[in-house]
Amino acid sequence: MKFDVLTLFPEMIEQACSHSIIARAVNNGIIDVNTVNPRDYTLDKHKKVDDTPFGGGAGMVLMCQPYFDAFDSIKKTENTEVILLSPQGKTFNQKKAAELARKEHIVLICGHYEGFDERIKLYTNAHEVSIGDFVLTGGELPALCLIDSISRNIEGFLGKMDSALKDSFSDGLLEHPQYTKPREYRGMKVPEVLFSGNHALIDGWRRKQQMLITRKKRPDLFAKFQKNCNNIEDLKLLNEVLFSETE
Amino acid sequence: MKFDVLTLFPEMIEQACSHSIIARAVNNGIIDVNTVNPRDYTLDKHKKVDDTPFGGGAGMVLMCQPYFDAFDSIKKTENTEVILLSPQGKTFNQKKAAELARKEHIVLICGHYEGFDERIKLYTNAHEVSIGDFVLTGGELPALCLIDSISRNIEGFLGKMDSALKDSFSDGLLEHPQYTKPREYRGMKVPEVLFSGNHALIDGWRRKQQMLITRKKRPDLFAKFQKNCNNIEDLKLLNEVLFSETE
Repeated sequence: MKFDVLTLFPEMIEQACSHSIIARAVNNGIIDVNTVNPRDYTLDKHKKVDDTPFGGGAGMVLMCQPYFDAFDSIKKTENTEVILLSPQGKTFNQKKAAELARKEHIVLICGHYEGFDERIKLYTNAHEVSIGDFVLTGGELPALCLIDSISRNIEGFLGKMDSALKDSFSDGLLEHPQYTKPREYRGMKVPEVLFSGNHALIDGWRRKQQMLITRKKRPDLFAKFQKNCNNIEDLKLLNEVLFSETE
Repeated sequence: MKFDVLTLFPEMIEQACSHSIIARAVNNGIIDVNTVNPRDYTLDKHKKVDDTPFGGGAGMVLMCQPYFDAFDSIKKTENTEVILLSPQGKTFNQKKAAELARKEHIVLICGHYEGFDERIKLYTNAHEVSIGDFVLTGGELPALCLIDSISRNIEGFLGKMDSALKDSFSDGLLEHPQYTKPREYRGMKVPEVLFSGNHALIDGWRRKQQMLITRKKRPDLFAKFQKNCNNIEDLKLLNEVLFSETE
């Protein structure tokens, strides 16, 4: 998977991709993250990339020319997806991450300052994607979130693909609680069931915890899960959960 | 505002905060971003911070001891908010950003790998916050999103506070389109109204565009806006929008 990121802050993308599992995936050739700086494409002698908005108002607006030309410099294929990070976009989620993981090439266009000249959206014909209903200084952090989240769904990125499938949201429920050594720390104990050695029992307990936690923390997700649940084991546990008043 | 970030990847936080408006706010003393690495607090001679999960399964789980001790090292006040970044948390949004901007001190706890020992949540008594329904490798990108988004709501962070109030979501609508020079580029023209010099006309056009764009892209937000709209100017425009079949 190749990512091309159009950004005025290429170091921010490059630095963030030099840590942890992302860095490992880059080194292993599983993903390739490249940056393109519109400032390198400006025809203005002062390397200007923004100007004041027509019609007045505070802030600066990113100009067409450097973005059009930077975008044109990227080689696209039939399997290229062009995404513009914007608070106006469709809200990104785990399902979208899994879908995008099947692409070969993703172009991520980052805004900064007040916004883009509207014509940049039209020219690039980009899908607008938002990571949530909050405003950030630029599209760089959202672009990094997409790179991370999409990459987790590419085979070979995680040690075991198993891990991504067990992630929160992947099957509509939040994750169960996790515990590691020691068995007791500052008076806080690990639930006994986890020492039982009985894997069916542990799996059942964890699945039920997923349902209880999702019901408590995200009733919206729980309602969807409940509506679509058609697996016999899940239905049995769901029945127990629905008839339990408390955890 | 002081941010303390508990993270195994302090450079990732520090590097990202060294760019753009965030860097300027740090330099101006408007915000202070500090990192605390649990690895510096581990009592294990190999500096281990994670271990295999009790009950089996893939991945590693972050251990209590380094996180408890790193957390204890941070001086808290009555006005400290403790947040654990987790896909299980309440979904962050612009309203929450504005609320948190009134705090003096925010502790952001970042996970990594499979997850935290559940007892870390209990011990720190943290509010769990999620930036969206997708899974990331660690809490660092979400922590950076919170720092950016919250800081934008602190007075003095942006040149004019005006800008944050006009951001998408701040009043329940998405932003209107923006345009800057030139008037025409590769055959694409800027709407004539923006050259009229008539500010009332421009403001009305922009407001109506906000409504049209929000209706088209985010019917959920538009429905809320419609329900709560009680300003005479907005109501008039809303009426026009509701009776327009197309843009």
